[in-house]
Amino acid sequence: MAEHNITVERTLKVLLEEKKYPTLKDILITMNPADIAAVFEELGDERIPLLFRLLPKELAAESFVEMEPEQQELLIRGFSDAELHEVLEELYVDDAVDIVEEMPANVVKRILAQADPQMRKDINDILRYPENSAGSMMTTEYVSLRPSMTVSEAITRIRRTGVDKETIYTCYVTEGRKLLGFLTVKDLLLTLDDDERIEDIMDTNVISVSTLTDQEEVAQMLSKYNFLALPVVDSDQRMVGIITFDDAMDVMVDEATEDIELMAGITPSDKTYLRSSPLDLFKHRIPWLMLLMVSATFTGMIITSFESALAAQVTLTAFIPMLMDTGGNSGSQSSVTIIRALSLGELEFADLPRVVWKEIQAAVLCGLALSLACFVKIMLVDRLFLGNSDVSILVSAVVCLTMAMTVLIAKVIGCTLPMCARRLGLDPAVMASPFITTIVDALSLLVYFGIASALLFS
Amino acid sequence: MAEHNITVERTLKVLLEEKKYPTLKDILITMNPADIAAVFEELGDERIPLLFRLLPKELAAESFVEMEPEQQELLIRGFSDAELHEVLEELYVDDAVDIVEEMPANVVKRILAQADPQMRKDINDILRYPENSAGSMMTTEYVSLRPSMTVSEAITRIRRTGVDKETIYTCYVTEGRKLLGFLTVKDLLLTLDDDERIEDIMDTNVISVSTLTDQEEVAQMLSKYNFLALPVVDSDQRMVGIITFDDAMDVMVDEATEDIELMAGITPSDKTYLRSSPLDLFKHRIPWLMLLMVSATFTGMIITSFESALAAQVTLTAFIPMLMDTGGNSGSQSSVTIIRALSLGELEFADLPRVVWKEIQAAVLCGLALSLACFVKIMLVDRLFLGNSDVSILVSAVVCLTMAMTVLIAKVIGCTLPMCARRLGLDPAVMASPFITTIVDALSLLVYFGIASALLFS
Repeated sequence: MAEHNITVERTLKVLLEEKKYPTLKDILITMNPADIAAVFEELGDERIPLLFRLLPKELAAESFVEMEPEQQELLIRGFSDAELHEVLEELYVDDAVDIVEEMPANVVKRILAQADPQMRKDINDILRYPENSAGSMMTTEYVSLRPSMTVSEAITRIRRTGVDKETIYTCYVTEGRKLLGFLTVKDLLLTLDDDERIEDIMDTNVISVSTLTDQEEVAQMLSKYNFLALPVVDSDQRMVGIITFDDAMDVMVDEATEDIELMAGITPSDKTYLRSSPLDLFKHRIPWLMLLMVSATFTGMIITSFESALAAQVTLTAFIPMLMDTGGNSGSQSSVTIIRALSLGELEFADLPRVVWKEIQAAVLCGLALSLACFVKIMLVDRLFLGNSDVSILVSAVVCLTMAMTVLIAKVIGCTLPMCARRLGLDPAVMASPFITTIVDALSLLVYFGIASALLFS
Repeated sequence: MAEHNITVERTLKVLLEEKKYPTLKDILITMNPADIAAVFEELGDERIPLLFRLLPKELAAESFVEMEPEQQELLIRGFSDAELHEVLEELYVDDAVDIVEEMPANVVKRILAQADPQMRKDINDILRYPENSAGSMMTTEYVSLRPSMTVSEAITRIRRTGVDKETIYTCYVTEGRKLLGFLTVKDLLLTLDDDERIEDIMDTNVISVSTLTDQEEVAQMLSKYNFLALPVVDSDQRMVGIITFDDAMDVMVDEATEDIELMAGITPSDKTYLRSSPLDLFKHRIPWLMLLMVSATFTGMIITSFESALAAQVTLTAFIPMLMDTGGNSGSQSSVTIIRALSLGELEFADLPRVVWKEIQAAVLCGLALSLACFVKIMLVDRLFLGNSDVSILVSAVVCLTMAMTVLIAKVIGCTLPMCARRLGLDPAVMASPFITTIVDALSLLVYFGIASALLFS
């Protein structure tokens, strides 16, 4: 896709310089809103207002929604009140809310002043819901039908009011704002008797979410049931809006990215990589690096307290990196698996005993295989091939025993901590590799020196 | 949701024992296919065939699609030929293909024998496409319209043929199988003149994918353009099928899970955590653990070759874990960020110079902050608080200098390797934390002993 944009971009640049506006317009109207937004961004801020004004009203609004907040703000600041009003007219409420959330206060004030009274009310209502809740991501524009309508009345209603709705394909049947059922346009079109009543063909087994449901759960439900939209109800079970599949898709991508960032010890960021400055990267990366560096003081203290033992048997030092890395890797395998299963709703805290037992069994298998391989490796590589006679059979027994113990400890900690985090209402992803590595490092060193003291220095 | 299933499950169990089949049926038909599949699984394999036969035909087929392969196989083995034929009748081709791909050969043979000739041909066609390609995930059932049709003719056609289509909301305009354009049911319904011709209202700017396009790219395109479906064309630009948003959502979730697993050194698995046996976990985890353990031989060799220096200055050993962990964490921060951006299509290989330069700047900032903090920490904690007089200012200078160098090396390697992997056609996620940690470990030790030799032992 990027290749394609680059070619169009060059053409548009030339046409712009030659002021061939009708040709420019002809090209732009063949393009999709997402591509228009991408090309505009590449062409540079000073050209955007001119290009934007070439677009027909609806395409302009759709492209506006796809732009980055910086470009949106630039455009809004350049708009006359009439222009701003016109763009807002074309926006769906949930998109308008997304934009308002990104703008500085004085721009928000102008937006609210130019919005229709109904939209202003809707925007303000949605802004009141907590961040990442269903209420904050819903749109209030949906097709509602009465139970007593006939199929042909319903189709007429959709044809008359559908143009302003984000989706017309799932219609909700309400009475006094209470949600009674739903039906799809497919159901309507495939019902061949036009006089059939909506209440007789609607599906009353309607799955809804509350305004306060977390957006991650909403996305999982849409994906699980393959719905195009989910209705949102308030605490009195009155219908207040819908959430559509495209927003759910965005949430799933964002949540996966957030989990991945947290797992790697990065505080989550809204900006894409190319839009992040080195200073942004620094700010999101330094907190965990700093914390983990300081907590490595403990591993240092453990080594220092065994310094005399290490001085007597320096060869033990050579195996520290291998033991620590294997422990870290084993722990992060478990923690990452569990964190992902928690995120996808496959696991909950009640499963903890099953999970721990499964991890113990897997750890015993991994530990046995690794320590056996490690023993063979030490004998062949370190003793025979490298001719390091310091590595006695006793030393390699200490290393292999520590290896097996470390894997076990790492896997049990790796599965337990994320589940406890979830239980405490924290994000399990915080309990991922870097955090667990630090704990496992310290424990594996204690085990190592403990076993070494018992077997070598007794 | 799990809570909810448990309650229903208990009711169903009691009703089953009391053989109250009409009541059972009444409850089941209020439920969604995904929930029915989940409850069936909980109730145990021996009860499933009986329960399944209570479901009406369409709901039975929809629930069948949602089940795990084990339950599907069990049911198929119990089906009479007539029953199998009936279920297959109700399936969409892409779902049938998904099932066929999971079944053993003798079950596949029965399925193909009982499928209609058209479905058998479609299944065989789709099976011929490479795994993870658009061709292998598409369905061949879509609504096609002729350009010369009027709006009312098109609506009539949809009402007549729509029942067998996975989605009717996006219709494709073809002539001699060539894809000319598309339009949505919303467009059709909102066109108030019933005699308008399809060719006059269709959108000719149609975005399609080829049968060989990778499924990840397909999912990204559906998400980027917020489409309900994407048309798939063969090498002669003839339309062969569509891919719908729900399949794209599943692909995005699966691809994110696969990336996360690879990043943690786990070979990807199709099974959910609770369905994986300890032996499964072992098989998917041991390859990387083994490889990384063996490659730690190099870090061991490096330490061994500096053994005499370490014996003279044992205190240097105490800082090895901190330096290695900081290097590993810095590297995985960069690699994970880059891998995610590559997966989401935000970066490509051509961006490498920009990326490296950005990472160098971020690394310098992180390195400076960390080594400064590290110096203060060593002076306050190790020297003052712990009273470790071995830690001279020169030693801490060696440690802090190594720290800054390691962060720089780690971040440059962390961003470069995943991009090179992508360039070579490998999955960038393989180049994540465990792999990079091993390389960075070895390099940071070399830097450490190099600087130590220069400053302490010269």
